[in-house]
Amino acid sequence: MVAVQVWLGLGSNLGDRRGHLTGALTALAAVPGVQVLRVSSFHESELLGEGPPQGPFLNGVAELRTTLGPQALLGVLQALEAQAGRVRPAPRNHPRPLDLDLLTYGDLRCDTRELVLPHPRWHERPFVTGPLRELGVALEALPQRPGVAVVGDPQAFAAQCTEWLAGGCVVGLVPTMGALHDGHRSLMEIAARECDRVAATIFVNPLQFGPNEDFAAYPRTLERDLEVCRAAGVHAVFTPTPEQMYEPGFCSQVQVGAEAQGMEGALRPDHFRGVATVVARLFALARPQRAYFGEKDAQQVAVVRRMTRDLGFPVQIVPCPIVREADGLARSSRNVYLSAEDRAAATVLVRALRSARQQFLRGACDRDALLQRVRAVVATEPRAQLDYVELRREGDLAELPPGPVDGGRLLIAAKFAGGLRPVRLLDNLSLRPGPDEA
Amino acid sequence: MVAVQVWLGLGSNLGDRRGHLTGALTALAAVPGVQVLRVSSFHESELLGEGPPQGPFLNGVAELRTTLGPQALLGVLQALEAQAGRVRPAPRNHPRPLDLDLLTYGDLRCDTRELVLPHPRWHERPFVTGPLRELGVALEALPQRPGVAVVGDPQAFAAQCTEWLAGGCVVGLVPTMGALHDGHRSLMEIAARECDRVAATIFVNPLQFGPNEDFAAYPRTLERDLEVCRAAGVHAVFTPTPEQMYEPGFCSQVQVGAEAQGMEGALRPDHFRGVATVVARLFALARPQRAYFGEKDAQQVAVVRRMTRDLGFPVQIVPCPIVREADGLARSSRNVYLSAEDRAAATVLVRALRSARQQFLRGACDRDALLQRVRAVVATEPRAQLDYVELRREGDLAELPPGPVDGGRLLIAAKFAGGLRPVRLLDNLSLRPGPDEA
Repeated sequence: MVAVQVWLGLGSNLGDRRGHLTGALTALAAVPGVQVLRVSSFHESELLGEGPPQGPFLNGVAELRTTLGPQALLGVLQALEAQAGRVRPAPRNHPRPLDLDLLTYGDLRCDTRELVLPHPRWHERPFVTGPLRELGVALEALPQRPGVAVVGDPQAFAAQCTEWLAGGCVVGLVPTMGALHDGHRSLMEIAARECDRVAATIFVNPLQFGPNEDFAAYPRTLERDLEVCRAAGVHAVFTPTPEQMYEPGFCSQVQVGAEAQGMEGALRPDHFRGVATVVARLFALARPQRAYFGEKDAQQVAVVRRMTRDLGFPVQIVPCPIVREADGLARSSRNVYLSAEDRAAATVLVRALRSARQQFLRGACDRDALLQRVRAVVATEPRAQLDYVELRREGDLAELPPGPVDGGRLLIAAKFAGGLRPVRLLDNLSLRPGPDEA
Repeated sequence: MVAVQVWLGLGSNLGDRRGHLTGALTALAAVPGVQVLRVSSFHESELLGEGPPQGPFLNGVAELRTTLGPQALLGVLQALEAQAGRVRPAPRNHPRPLDLDLLTYGDLRCDTRELVLPHPRWHERPFVTGPLRELGVALEALPQRPGVAVVGDPQAFAAQCTEWLAGGCVVGLVPTMGALHDGHRSLMEIAARECDRVAATIFVNPLQFGPNEDFAAYPRTLERDLEVCRAAGVHAVFTPTPEQMYEPGFCSQVQVGAEAQGMEGALRPDHFRGVATVVARLFALARPQRAYFGEKDAQQVAVVRRMTRDLGFPVQIVPCPIVREADGLARSSRNVYLSAEDRAAATVLVRALRSARQQFLRGACDRDALLQRVRAVVATEPRAQLDYVELRREGDLAELPPGPVDGGRLLIAAKFAGGLRPVRLLDNLSLRPGPDEA
């Protein structure tokens, strides 16, 4: 076993701070396979970031040589922290008697749930860089971690996600076509809260556009999109070109049955085959445990859920609530193409859906009467050309028979043709509003 | 952090055996987070299994309590082994100065590349059970590992494979329809050599049988199949029923283009759609790094390879050489249905292919002349009804134009109708034989 050079960050701001630090170093030196080579002097620093009121830290760094693997060394450090009285799991940024961080472990780069090497942002922390400089270490020679990974190559993307998976991380995937708006941002933020690592994909998928649709004109705003991803806590962004995504000779497609019939499936032949195929490919590449989709495209969610179950991907499909403008219009990347007049008129969709829901909540429950209510409101707006409105069962969006209903989801699509190009907008609303739905 | 009870197995058969064992225990007791509670006396035992000539072991067990996690404790044990002069990676069953094995870690069950808990077969080893009994330990109260896992539930199968993946294992998948013969066994043995864990699947897939084909009559020999899997070193066998494999409402299918045209694809409409769908589902569930297929079904291999690349599964497709009977007949689960006369006649397929190859190796290279040679040999056997013979490009099996060829693969299919039911047999042969092809 080859001995590896390790830089260790040390900190304490509770109890006998100097005693905790020196005690830990003495105990470390007694561990088989660990040598403590050099220790900086200790310096005081204040807590960085939010936290309860607490005293200053005493910080330093130490250089080790070890034959222990990184996980084993981490386990020993955690045992030392526990011996010093540190409780795990501890609330973030609470005072602690001992904090031992692996800053670097040779040249190793790893990104697991327990351990990220080199330590993220060590180079931004004065209480680390100061002691390192004191010991005469050339900081630029120590490995640093890059920021958000942006990859176009499918194999590189798969490798990144595999590393996370093999490192015990819960990986969340947020597939998008870019032109990111607050709806996408909310998907990413929800994913960042629920997962250890978040991968977003930005790919305008030619397979899901019909020959007369707006593939070429679909808005592409990559630089701004990457900023949105970074700010929302995304760890990697997959941005393939169509040639990278679909190699020459590509010919396998995933066809979904019932859920892809009717509504968008009727108006856009092969659209859902393209959606199911690209999502299957993303799931195969990234192998996420959770995937996040906006409920605005409710039929897409139903198709993806069915494909996921049928092909057996162990992925939890997480539908996320529609994010709306202040006036109620559902956020969509295509909203930018609306003329000013169409933009104002487009709120008729959500107004129509809400009006029908209000009738339902007041006791009206006949399917066709509720649909008629939606149509009547839409008819008040001559700029809106209704494609369809339907009332479907929640979840799988199966058709509901005529007559009384005890719930369901209203789905609507309409065209607005007053701008440079016609824009199709979708919206939907549950008859029984959830807590985060307005 | 809660302290966990651990049983440790100790052994040494090189150098100062007693010194290595007691030295390791003393060093262990000095590690933060480790207490040594009890140590058995040490006993001599001979090496179990194959290995070079060597002296007897000195063995014992020790009971620990630790706040170290299992990976950290393992790392410390490996550092102690290294300090005693043990070299890693070491050849299997060579003499060693120190051997420290985690037998149990509380009730933890884990199955990773580095660590399997409880230790497999500790309960079969007298040099472990003897010292445990000496300390008054009730052996039946200690956790043991079960043998090969046989699971029918897709989610349970996915969970097993995910544990391996998250534990750093290379997982190999061997999809079969059961009725296992030596061809299947060779797939499993190759997989066991190349992978840390092997999952075999036994599932007669209704999607890949046409309405007039032999789905109901396909041989099913589950108990014997499980024995074959165990003997070949398989770690888990997935044996779903059709209802477990395809839930009610199942409707998603994977359609493959070019590779599924012609030959079997022409004779068995939708056959390859069924194959691509079930393999995609198995890949999605098991997420293997490698998957093993017999080259006898060469077009199936081409279809699976295309589907895998197109959908982006990070799976290496490993085609394995055809295993033949002594008289050259390719092994097939359907051979059992041949009448005695048809069984004897069936060797005409490989004889015809080899005859054409011989011509090619002697300098004949016209595509149609080679095919004609195959047809001529098959025509000498009136029991054989030729379905097709084709000469295709290696790998993707693309069609070759008429005229001279510089290689390729001959593929043949024929029916033998002299038994209780007609049997279709496939075979194929490369014009340029590989080292393991006869």
